[in-house]
Amino acid sequence: MRGNKFGKLFSFVTFGESHGEALGVVVDGVSAGLDFDLEDLQRELDRRAPGRVAGTTNRKEADRAEVLSGVFEGKTLGTPIAVIVRNTNQRSGDYDKLKTEYRPGHADETTQSKYGIRDHRGGGRSSGRETLSRVIAGYFAGLMIPKINISAYISKMGPFEASLDDLKNAKNIAPYNFPLTEKNEEIKKYLLKLKAEGESVGGRISIHVTGVPKGLGEPAFDKLKADFAKGLLSIGACVSFSFGLGEEMANLKGSEVSSKRENFGGIEGGISNGEDIFLTTTFKPTSTIGEKAKEGRHDPCILPRAVPVVEAMVKCILADHLLRQRAYGDGVIDE
Amino acid sequence: MRGNKFGKLFSFVTFGESHGEALGVVVDGVSAGLDFDLEDLQRELDRRAPGRVAGTTNRKEADRAEVLSGVFEGKTLGTPIAVIVRNTNQRSGDYDKLKTEYRPGHADETTQSKYGIRDHRGGGRSSGRETLSRVIAGYFAGLMIPKINISAYISKMGPFEASLDDLKNAKNIAPYNFPLTEKNEEIKKYLLKLKAEGESVGGRISIHVTGVPKGLGEPAFDKLKADFAKGLLSIGACVSFSFGLGEEMANLKGSEVSSKRENFGGIEGGISNGEDIFLTTTFKPTSTIGEKAKEGRHDPCILPRAVPVVEAMVKCILADHLLRQRAYGDGVIDE
Amino acid sequence: MRGNKFGKLFSFVTFGESHGEALGVVVDGVSAGLDFDLEDLQRELDRRAPGRVAGTTNRKEADRAEVLSGVFEGKTLGTPIAVIVRNTNQRSGDYDKLKTEYRPGHADETTQSKYGIRDHRGGGRSSGRETLSRVIAGYFAGLMIPKINISAYISKMGPFEASLDDLKNAKNIAPYNFPLTEKNEEIKKYLLKLKAEGESVGGRISIHVTGVPKGLGEPAFDKLKADFAKGLLSIGACVSFSFGLGEEMANLKGSEVSSKRENFGGIEGGISNGEDIFLTTTFKPTSTIGEKAKEGRHDPCILPRAVPVVEAMVKCILADHLLRQRAYGDGVIDE
Amino acid sequence: MRGNKFGKLFSFVTFGESHGEALGVVVDGVSAGLDFDLEDLQRELDRRAPGRVAGTTNRKEADRAEVLSGVFEGKTLGTPIAVIVRNTNQRSGDYDKLKTEYRPGHADETTQSKYGIRDHRGGGRSSGRETLSRVIAGYFAGLMIPKINISAYISKMGPFEASLDDLKNAKNIAPYNFPLTEKNEEIKKYLLKLKAEGESVGGRISIHVTGVPKGLGEPAFDKLKADFAKGLLSIGACVSFSFGLGEEMANLKGSEVSSKRENFGGIEGGISNGEDIFLTTTFKPTSTIGEKAKEGRHDPCILPRAVPVVEAMVKCILADHLLRQRAYGDGVIDE
Repeated sequence: MRGNKFGKLFSFVTFGESHGEALGVVVDGVSAGLDFDLEDLQRELDRRAPGRVAGTTNRKEADRAEVLSGVFEGKTLGTPIAVIVRNTNQRSGDYDKLKTEYRPGHADETTQSKYGIRDHRGGGRSSGRETLSRVIAGYFAGLMIPKINISAYISKMGPFEASLDDLKNAKNIAPYNFPLTEKNEEIKKYLLKLKAEGESVGGRISIHVTGVPKGLGEPAFDKLKADFAKGLLSIGACVSFSFGLGEEMANLKGSEVSSKRENFGGIEGGISNGEDIFLTTTFKPTSTIGEKAKEGRHDPCILPRAVPVVEAMVKCILADHLLRQRAYGDGVIDE
Repeated sequence: MRGNKFGKLFSFVTFGESHGEALGVVVDGVSAGLDFDLEDLQRELDRRAPGRVAGTTNRKEADRAEVLSGVFEGKTLGTPIAVIVRNTNQRSGDYDKLKTEYRPGHADETTQSKYGIRDHRGGGRSSGRETLSRVIAGYFAGLMIPKINISAYISKMGPFEASLDDLKNAKNIAPYNFPLTEKNEEIKKYLLKLKAEGESVGGRISIHVTGVPKGLGEPAFDKLKADFAKGLLSIGACVSFSFGLGEEMANLKGSEVSSKRENFGGIEGGISNGEDIFLTTTFKPTSTIGEKAKEGRHDPCILPRAVPVVEAMVKCILADHLLRQRAYGDGVIDE
Repeated sequence: MRGNKFGKLFSFVTFGESHGEALGVVVDGVSAGLDFDLEDLQRELDRRAPGRVAGTTNRKEADRAEVLSGVFEGKTLGTPIAVIVRNTNQRSGDYDKLKTEYRPGHADETTQSKYGIRDHRGGGRSSGRETLSRVIAGYFAGLMIPKINISAYISKMGPFEASLDDLKNAKNIAPYNFPLTEKNEEIKKYLLKLKAEGESVGGRISIHVTGVPKGLGEPAFDKLKADFAKGLLSIGACVSFSFGLGEEMANLKGSEVSSKRENFGGIEGGISNGEDIFLTTTFKPTSTIGEKAKEGRHDPCILPRAVPVVEAMVKCILADHLLRQRAYGDGVIDE
Repeated sequence: MRGNKFGKLFSFVTFGESHGEALGVVVDGVSAGLDFDLEDLQRELDRRAPGRVAGTTNRKEADRAEVLSGVFEGKTLGTPIAVIVRNTNQRSGDYDKLKTEYRPGHADETTQSKYGIRDHRGGGRSSGRETLSRVIAGYFAGLMIPKINISAYISKMGPFEASLDDLKNAKNIAPYNFPLTEKNEEIKKYLLKLKAEGESVGGRISIHVTGVPKGLGEPAFDKLKADFAKGLLSIGACVSFSFGLGEEMANLKGSEVSSKRENFGGIEGGISNGEDIFLTTTFKPTSTIGEKAKEGRHDPCILPRAVPVVEAMVKCILADHLLRQRAYGDGVIDE
């Protein structure tokens, strides 16, 4: 009941402090009999790791996934799947000053108040490293919904903006996860400059989902839009969520909205209508700035690395809702 | 597990179709020994009812609350509190055409797909009347947190905009729940005009919360911002949520954000920091437009009536988190 | 989180004090499209009511079920089903002395300690009348599992004992729910005598279930036997649960047990094996004895009336597990 | 939702197949600031391990606990505590025959039906090794309730019987956890003889709890007796639960029961009354008998090793209920 579990029928529990022994996750609700490939899982993790994207942090985290349970002879068993990642490249000494200091915007002070004790090294449980547990869970959710395609991409970062059409025309948007890949050199320079200044920048991540069947979402409170909102806002640094036309709705009249079905963003009455789903999130700038940023090894912008985390949450939510929809059919259930 | 329950330690289950026998709620987790006043509850309900605000719908719903359990001699017992509201003024005949028609943007078609059956009269369970159950739950949550003050207000509706400062200068913002009350006549004309045109408009509702103690919110997944997002997005017609600077964060640098503590909107690391909390939601225009709107008795804008619903959800979430914070103290628990 | 909800995918929340306005239940997870018959529901309730069985209490409770939501044109909608029963025949005056007295074995004192307040009339929420909410929930669970047959019967009450074979040879075991119906006159005399003496007696209720498919039960903690144990022990006055050979297992060797498959009682490894299920529960004697019993209108033995409550709980547990089993299939879920 | 989680406010999730990489548990709800001692945890685990009790299995399992998260500088952080135990001494070859065979009374066949796939080695997830995860969780629950004392002991095993008085007179009841320690040599001979014959025996484990405050238990469904029943019946091989006089209640009249308060076993109306709590469970004989038993390395009686598992479950349930009781106080909660 301490907020460490996400989801109902497809659910996962995460654990681990960034400077403790290991981080990890126990995923529950994965169907039996699915093909499991450790290399695919590792590739998902690598998308998230720092140090691989020039211009972002220069920490190299060798995040190797170790699967402890729930798979056998290359297939899932239907039992809980525990995966851990050992903490190997954490320079705890960097954080010694923080034993008695609180970084603004981080959970340092609020965590100390809440628990009366905290692991001051690197943000403890509230560290960005916690997101690797989500990416692992997302990998398994993805095994359950192969017909659904989830594409998250940066739609705004500093001066750079991209649209859904840009995404549709793009091939491989790594490493920045920004659709206009011809801008990659510019982006690299921009990020390195921010870093040198001890500055940081936020932005927007948009998500396009195709292949979602009709009927997902559980009124009144577990509407699909509500569960998306919760899952995405639970990501560190996320400060807003919207779907369809989102905030633009405040400027329109009813007739203008109803004219195009896609203005509803794939969700009507809180339930998926079978059309493409469009979601948008806003992330605030990384809070470690100025002197501390220059000393440490932080991201001037976490958006590129947040993209796989965003996709993972969306996958988990869809897997959960599909299981819920499958549970409830019409009429008798003992045939 | 059908999404009919909200909350964990302070929770409630809602039920009722808009043209069924009654709507209602069972509220669980209300402390024992609180003073209960039926007239106060009724007043909260009245804030939400249609037909009381000129320019909005002319349906008059005599929503009388009947408390069936959980209170005794003017005090709460700590047992579940069931409250119902009979459906008395529903003109089912108005909806006969809808037995085989789906209104765009409503849950009609998605509900039919999902369940294979639906009560076509007035939106069934997905009707706006479902929100009265939330308002009732919010009343009881409010009894548990008298030191916390929650003020929701319309910050944008058509051409009308208001700020937090406007709210601070306002006395009583009923009936439109818009801070610049000198505009009330203009608003009335504007809404009546929309109605005559068969049009509708959306807008934004902002929320200002004071008196929240430090330490509320449960990382990693039940962060306070995540639970707010879910509770608010679960309201029909709500299409976005943000806190603090929200979407504006996408345009700022780290130094600009950290300069003012209130840019964090009262939440850091997903946990309340003891400062005022600022939230914003966007609502889309009412989906019944054109001919159907002129025939029926719909709202050209639901925002005034959504304000008490928004407050109710925020109250329920804060009561839930305060109970959770109280459960977990340090050290031994059997003293 | 106050223990007022039972079940996960098929779940229900109960409410109501025995001398409050009404008791009731909100049932969640009932499939859409099932045929609903109010008279059948009423018949189930009548099996439980006091005053209908000679020799048991002479209170007549006119328990009329009122369905408030979740059904339409004779079919379930898949939305929450709220049913209430008004308290009409409660003689609150009988309990005035109890405002400051605690009846031994009842929840009076423990409830006062726990909540600091209680409705002293008739046992408040802990009254036996709470069981009618369970019977209502059981009715709806039964609609979902028509192929499963659940028969509960008294296997011991005072000097009277019956076996499963006796049950198989019996036609209609009402009103005492004891298989050897030729003993009914004797039983009536026995109970009236106990009542006159201000005495009470307990006994055993056994349950025989047929038609349960293989595979129900969720290791490690929601094993079918564990959920049965919880549901049955939650009934007031129930003091033990066992399945298969139960306590007799303590006297046997492994070879003796394995020799007959039915010794496992239909459950192996906590999962149903497709065979008949055999459960047994013990109920303690009614706690109101002596003077208070003679003044009031209590049961010298609650077993006949507990039988439909026991069946209801077993039905709810099986419906819940069938939904859970249906949710989790193999492989992909978005076909 | 697959039954892998136990508890609400103090909860834990277990994982691991007996022949997979590791078993483990993630414990949630442990208060921050408690003293943690790895050696104490290891000692608890050792009580459960096979191979240490002459006459029981000769498998030696080197169960070393590795704590991965949730503790720092010898204290709990209030964050999830993950502990794993690597599987080191599992002779998978022993089980090759079982790829296509089902052992009666085990979960082999029911698991295959349920999931369509299973890890046939050693019982997979349903193995007795799963209980070490429970013992670990029980260790942490124990840190939270130091004033409560839980003593489980064998009250019947084959020809050996002991009473609560015998327990009170005993000093250290290891290794058999049977109070009449002067019988230890006899017991050893008895068990070795059973093993040689390929036989097995079940028995009863009783539990005596002191120091439980009044008021624990949440009517209507999470009564303390109901949660005890579920937690204990969830242990493999457990086939019955009772409290107070248990099944003996079927033979008594009301006056006989009310005469001694301890006949209620410390629970009235489903809520603890502050008196000592008495619980009893029955375990069936180990299912591997005959040839398979002689070849393998099984227990002729699991009762000695089940005693710490029983204590662990009772601790977890009490910690959970104490947290729930602490959450709900009277009146306002924002002081």
